[in-house]
Amino acid sequence: MSAILEKFLSTQARVDESAIQPLPNSQKIHVTGSRSDIQVPMREISLSNTQLNNKQEKNLPLTIYDTSGPYTDPKSSIDIRKGLTEIRKPWIEDREDTQRLPQTNSQYSHQQANDPSLDHLRFPNKKLPRKAKKDCNVTQMHYARQGIITPEMEFVAIRENQRLSEYKAQCFRQHPGQSFGAQLPNEITPEFVRSEVAKGRAIIPANINHPEIEPMIIGRNFLVKINANIGNSAITSSISEEVDKMTWAIRWGADTVMDLSTGKHIHETREWIIRNAPVPIGTVPIYQALEKVGGIAEDLTWEIFRDTLLEQAEQGVDYFTIHAGVRLAYVPLTASRLTGIVSRGGSIMAKWCLAHHQENFLYTRFEEICQIMKAYDVSFSLGDGLRPGSIADANDEAQFAELETLGALTQIAWKHNVQTMIEGPGHVPMHLIKENMDKQLACCGEAPFYTLGPLTTDIAPGYDHITSGIGAALIGWYGTAMLCYVTPKEHLGLPNKRDVREGIVTYKIAAHAADLAKGHPGAQIRDNALSKARFEFRWEDQFNVGLDPDRAREYHDETLPKESAKTAHFCSMCGPKFCSMKISQDVRDYAAEKGIETDSAFTQGMAEKAAEFRHQGSKIYREA
Amino acid sequence: MSAILEKFLSTQARVDESAIQPLPNSQKIHVTGSRSDIQVPMREISLSNTQLNNKQEKNLPLTIYDTSGPYTDPKSSIDIRKGLTEIRKPWIEDREDTQRLPQTNSQYSHQQANDPSLDHLRFPNKKLPRKAKKDCNVTQMHYARQGIITPEMEFVAIRENQRLSEYKAQCFRQHPGQSFGAQLPNEITPEFVRSEVAKGRAIIPANINHPEIEPMIIGRNFLVKINANIGNSAITSSISEEVDKMTWAIRWGADTVMDLSTGKHIHETREWIIRNAPVPIGTVPIYQALEKVGGIAEDLTWEIFRDTLLEQAEQGVDYFTIHAGVRLAYVPLTASRLTGIVSRGGSIMAKWCLAHHQENFLYTRFEEICQIMKAYDVSFSLGDGLRPGSIADANDEAQFAELETLGALTQIAWKHNVQTMIEGPGHVPMHLIKENMDKQLACCGEAPFYTLGPLTTDIAPGYDHITSGIGAALIGWYGTAMLCYVTPKEHLGLPNKRDVREGIVTYKIAAHAADLAKGHPGAQIRDNALSKARFEFRWEDQFNVGLDPDRAREYHDETLPKESAKTAHFCSMCGPKFCSMKISQDVRDYAAEKGIETDSAFTQGMAEKAAEFRHQGSKIYREA
Repeated sequence: MSAILEKFLSTQARVDESAIQPLPNSQKIHVTGSRSDIQVPMREISLSNTQLNNKQEKNLPLTIYDTSGPYTDPKSSIDIRKGLTEIRKPWIEDREDTQRLPQTNSQYSHQQANDPSLDHLRFPNKKLPRKAKKDCNVTQMHYARQGIITPEMEFVAIRENQRLSEYKAQCFRQHPGQSFGAQLPNEITPEFVRSEVAKGRAIIPANINHPEIEPMIIGRNFLVKINANIGNSAITSSISEEVDKMTWAIRWGADTVMDLSTGKHIHETREWIIRNAPVPIGTVPIYQALEKVGGIAEDLTWEIFRDTLLEQAEQGVDYFTIHAGVRLAYVPLTASRLTGIVSRGGSIMAKWCLAHHQENFLYTRFEEICQIMKAYDVSFSLGDGLRPGSIADANDEAQFAELETLGALTQIAWKHNVQTMIEGPGHVPMHLIKENMDKQLACCGEAPFYTLGPLTTDIAPGYDHITSGIGAALIGWYGTAMLCYVTPKEHLGLPNKRDVREGIVTYKIAAHAADLAKGHPGAQIRDNALSKARFEFRWEDQFNVGLDPDRAREYHDETLPKESAKTAHFCSMCGPKFCSMKISQDVRDYAAEKGIETDSAFTQGMAEKAAEFRHQGSKIYREA
Repeated sequence: MSAILEKFLSTQARVDESAIQPLPNSQKIHVTGSRSDIQVPMREISLSNTQLNNKQEKNLPLTIYDTSGPYTDPKSSIDIRKGLTEIRKPWIEDREDTQRLPQTNSQYSHQQANDPSLDHLRFPNKKLPRKAKKDCNVTQMHYARQGIITPEMEFVAIRENQRLSEYKAQCFRQHPGQSFGAQLPNEITPEFVRSEVAKGRAIIPANINHPEIEPMIIGRNFLVKINANIGNSAITSSISEEVDKMTWAIRWGADTVMDLSTGKHIHETREWIIRNAPVPIGTVPIYQALEKVGGIAEDLTWEIFRDTLLEQAEQGVDYFTIHAGVRLAYVPLTASRLTGIVSRGGSIMAKWCLAHHQENFLYTRFEEICQIMKAYDVSFSLGDGLRPGSIADANDEAQFAELETLGALTQIAWKHNVQTMIEGPGHVPMHLIKENMDKQLACCGEAPFYTLGPLTTDIAPGYDHITSGIGAALIGWYGTAMLCYVTPKEHLGLPNKRDVREGIVTYKIAAHAADLAKGHPGAQIRDNALSKARFEFRWEDQFNVGLDPDRAREYHDETLPKESAKTAHFCSMCGPKFCSMKISQDVRDYAAEKGIETDSAFTQGMAEKAAEFRHQGSKIYREA
């Protein structure tokens, strides 16, 4: 393990080859905004034509929300030693409210930069950090409240629409949804984005020191997003492994990535990740602060924590999990719990509070933290340090006491125009999930909710992507804006690439199932395209439109590996004679061929249906 | 493939070794009923003791519902050439309402029995079938309506309770549920079982020719059950593979198994499965009937179908899927669908109806079918032949027209005292799932609902165990009695053993999440036991209490393979310093050790909590 770690050499760092393969039958496209440097990436999947006995038609390509950045674009040349293009740089500079610092404000960053023993690990292309000019507030919320539509906001609007207007002409089918109060416009305008950010109902995590990102939005009235956690621990993993996990995670669809490293070289690992990440990066700064005091929670101080915030803000972290709601008075409320405090950050702060008999310094210093956040536009992700770690502890007094405090802190953050989202549980049985969402909306003024699962049962270690995927789909439907994935390794070990992919696809399913249930405009287009391909035995299209084309193909080929099977009108499940899809096609063909008049088919007991049927033209299958 | 098939020799058939390993730290126990031959099997998992700084306590063993039959009992010797012990034989004989037939009533069975070319495949220990005596009705519903509590009913009552009364003394915690009208008694009595079967709200599938089963019940007021589909196709699989899949499926928790074979040697395959199955076996007889007419749906006749029902009823199939609701008049309602008719049985019958311009013979001959069902106690599973095969087609007119017909057929079945459940969809977005359950309850007089998923999105081939596991958990919560599993191979290929295990564990999760949400008495005991083990770093117990101990151990060991790690108070996710569980323990220990009086800790802003806190005794952690 440390052998792997030591092997990492900055001079030899290379992108993971598996991250840069284009997805099958897909091409990267860019939709241009009001200025030529607003180039919004999407993935376009080409489909083959329908070729059935009675039907030949062209199938238009499908547009897919694409989180993979330039990695899947064969036109890009990727060198992780250089980092990604700073696409936001002109937008930030045009605002003229920031400046490059002559040197970092963080003592720790300064030490790291001047430690020759780290030279071989260091990201080679490091720039000086940017900060708001004196008395300037550089948050997207600040601009939004001033009525300014930033390029970031316009980017997000174009991205959310996914060229929906082009599909509207095709009259695609979609069920009306049940949105529980979410307001989903038919078209996302830049002004709608601005107003949602101004109201605090959505955030665009976009640190001015992370100009490489393709902006995205997190809010109940937008597509449900997912986050993937990566990060090393004291036990395992290296810098290159973590960068590979990031590029792997966005390939499968992670909208943001949290670097939860708690092992060696946290600072350097993070630099490599941010410089190469087209998605927002989140962290839990208390983890690194604890590392700096040798793991002794009692030794944490505001000064060390503050320096860590500066260090990470200046590297470009887009959102911080801050466990400011773990108040001293709430710690005793966890005493009768089955599983105590299970949030790492929450337990660290609880220990500090008890040891010092003092209120949590993240709470008492909250306005000072806001000052830092708004100088870099780091968003708050207010941590749920007292979330339940078991079904037994769900929705208890400790959890909801903290949630109320997070609501109060949200108001303070908003006073400073700091973008804010709220973290949620945890382990919650299905019937208690909605209460979480309803209380969060009520307590926190509709600030976006960002939940971990929740896990709907405790009894399946090894399958907690599934126990939690169920809860995630539900809470996403109820209104959660971003779902933090859980991998099959949850409770057991650190996820590897296989686990990351499994966790992300599971959460893409949960998020999409939620979009469908909410009735998000256009959400059903992809389902329709896949099902049409399936019904028409366009196997390659069925694979390619799915969330994981590689696995679909692999599973199909396990029993029917020949290329000819990709055009066969049956599969290995039923064989040719029992294929319902094929029979159903046969029924259509048969009826069309014979021009069946069905009147003769109606005998006693079918009169009521017959009348309705005749009214419709009396053909068994008519043209749509 | 056919090479594998030909290799199967009756004389060399052996049980799959992987099916007969006892589960870790588990022993098979039997709870005795009112007569000594009512021996209800359960699995007891031994737990290690709690050994923490401030706490030593014994953890009582956990009782788990066990579907694995004698296979996991080291005291049993399994020989699949002999089949399982006929535990129901004395119960059936005591009722004196059945007789052994001198020979089978099925012509096809007769032919098969006398075909020397099948000798090498034939189950060696075949007995003559049993049938109701003239004018006798031998269904559990018939007995229930006469006020008779059968040994099967008593067996089921004991089994459902899972020794709950022994746990009640321990005051385990459980959240009150939300049951949507389900009536869940604190203790299941034999009389309650009888009354639910009499009302048609539950069924006990138990063919008199399948005396080997350990009876189980399917109903909204009992534990949610799951079914696993197995079966060969024309493309792949052999007899021994299918028997192995059955023993593998029940090991992981399948409550019933459907043999959906459509390939070679369907009759012989089924015989091997039934004789070795301790769980009810379901089939779709139309599949075999179609096979008998060379796969030409138009050539199906009532006579061939009737002979198939007799053949399978006399082999011991416990429930038949019958697509009697696919009426000719409904076929045109599917014309504008995106994916037509996707049920195999449904599409076969639709094709037959159209070709003959006649009403579905399963509908017109329904009372004749009931006569057969009640002579063997085969339960109906009324098939949803018009279920939606895509999100677009969910809850449409065709689907609900069929459901209304299934309701009418249920009344006819009940007139004959034939046990009946109703099959449900399919592909349905989350927000349209409840309508399915509500309509089913209303149309079908609360007959048990048995659903396939439903899949909540179409876009994830390769992961449809998850797209459907979400829907299954929801519909189980709403009141579905049995969930038919979906494996990762759905839409792509025939599941192998890996897929069967993945599908079953996913569905055990869905069923258990539903039980928790409904508030099934005692459902939370297992969650509590697992979470307590997790919090106390009893790693082995955490693995063993879970649904898949092997995978949990394997995942843990990927990063920390040493035995010492199984007692470590941390894991590879966070390492020792960041382990919230460990810190939370430390907090408890610290408080207990210091006997902390927290008054001094309360300063401004905490007064309101302080009062409450003092009222509780002012210790941070008090004894429970």
